Amino acid sequence: MEIDVSKPILARNDSLAAENRRTFSDAGVFVVDLMASPGAGKTSTILATIDALRERYRIAVIEGDIASKVDAEKVKAHGIPAVQINTGGACHLESDMIQRAAAALPMEELDLIIVENVGNLVCPTEFDLGENAKVMILSVPEGHDKPYKYPAIFSKAEAIILNKYDTLPVFDFDEGEFREVVGKLNGKAPIFPISATKGDGVKAWTDWLAARIDEAKAKASSS
Amino acid sequence: MEIDVSKPILARNDSLAAENRRTFSDAGVFVVDLMASPGAGKTSTILATIDALRERYRIAVIEGDIASKVDAEKVKAHGIPAVQINTGGACHLESDMIQRAAAALPMEELDLIIVENVGNLVCPTEFDLGENAKVMILSVPEGHDKPYKYPAIFSKAEAIILNKYDTLPVFDFDEGEFREVVGKLNGKAPIFPISATKGDGVKAWTDWLAARIDEAKAKASSS
Repeated sequence: MEIDVSKPILARNDSLAAENRRTFSDAGVFVVDLMASPGAGKTSTILATIDALRERYRIAVIEGDIASKVDAEKVKAHGIPAVQINTGGACHLESDMIQRAAAALPMEELDLIIVENVGNLVCPTEFDLGENAKVMILSVPEGHDKPYKYPAIFSKAEAIILNKYDTLPVFDFDEGEFREVVGKLNGKAPIFPISATKGDGVKAWTDWLAARIDEAKAKASSS
Repeated sequence: MEIDVSKPILARNDSLAAENRRTFSDAGVFVVDLMASPGAGKTSTILATIDALRERYRIAVIEGDIASKVDAEKVKAHGIPAVQINTGGACHLESDMIQRAAAALPMEELDLIIVENVGNLVCPTEFDLGENAKVMILSVPEGHDKPYKYPAIFSKAEAIILNKYDTLPVFDFDEGEFREVVGKLNGKAPIFPISATKGDGVKAWTDWLAARIDEAKAKASSS
């Protein structure tokens, strides 16, 4: 007899994700789940996003990692509240971890929570955390062929950040082919080329995010 | 009631891995499992390894990916037999997939099988495939902090390849800190800085691999 354990695990995850979504909505907090490979620049992108939006929104960060708290420390050094989740081995965040992390944050004093998922192009894709938007980062050094190999994450992302764009001359990255393959998987998601550490292109990404946040706020206040 | 499903899954995996190990040993084939993040350069490293060792050993490749066959095609274009496994969503290879892939290869005509695992620093770590050695690749653009966040894979690797070493001037990668943290996790694994696409440093890595292959052959013929 074979048991498909993935269904009950996902059902429980989705039910807690729905609770999270209500909590966030009631508090007027927009939540974005950032997914990427290890080393694609999730933390640098978060720091650049904080710099661009901190005058306008009250921001907190939930950091997900197998081990260590180096990322949460980087965010805190930026003067932003951060909670570190250590999954202890799990390759993705789940909604119960987000629920516990959110309980440690001053929800009523926030407008935006950025969740940094575990570095992984596969496992985080399937797990609803109760976020408003899933966004993925690919970095130029990873190569333009990644959408062929990891189609699900490219299909599900609402926006795609192409980070380390300043290193394009150093790598054999065919941006035309990348955009074409991504376009077939996902006709809606905008692609934002950025250099998170240098700041290039960050404005287009944070303008998109700010529009999404304001749209959610307007919708909440009209209901 | 909670059921720990990971134990029976791992037990079944390990029992098939032991079968694989006997099959490989009987045929005198050395098997190396290459693990890395998406885009760290697994396929480029395999192509460079083939170029360095093809005069000396008969080589085949088993390619693991969620989807697509682009990597197997690259290897076949190099004139080397390759089998593509598509996991269909699973974030790592398991021993039953290797068993089926190996059955499609001319085992008695081979000395070395290189397995390219799914791009992931987490999930492949736990699964014995019946290989002789697990080797990991980190690429310079991923950053020197990865051993803090993904300690298990650095602990388990028998050798660590530091790829895209030629891009060191472009990235903020502290090699001293990297070597120090890896040394604490794993006192034994040699670290091989290479540039797979340019060939720099590849000889040290393939000399190590050749020594391991010859050692296994000597041990098999004396028993």
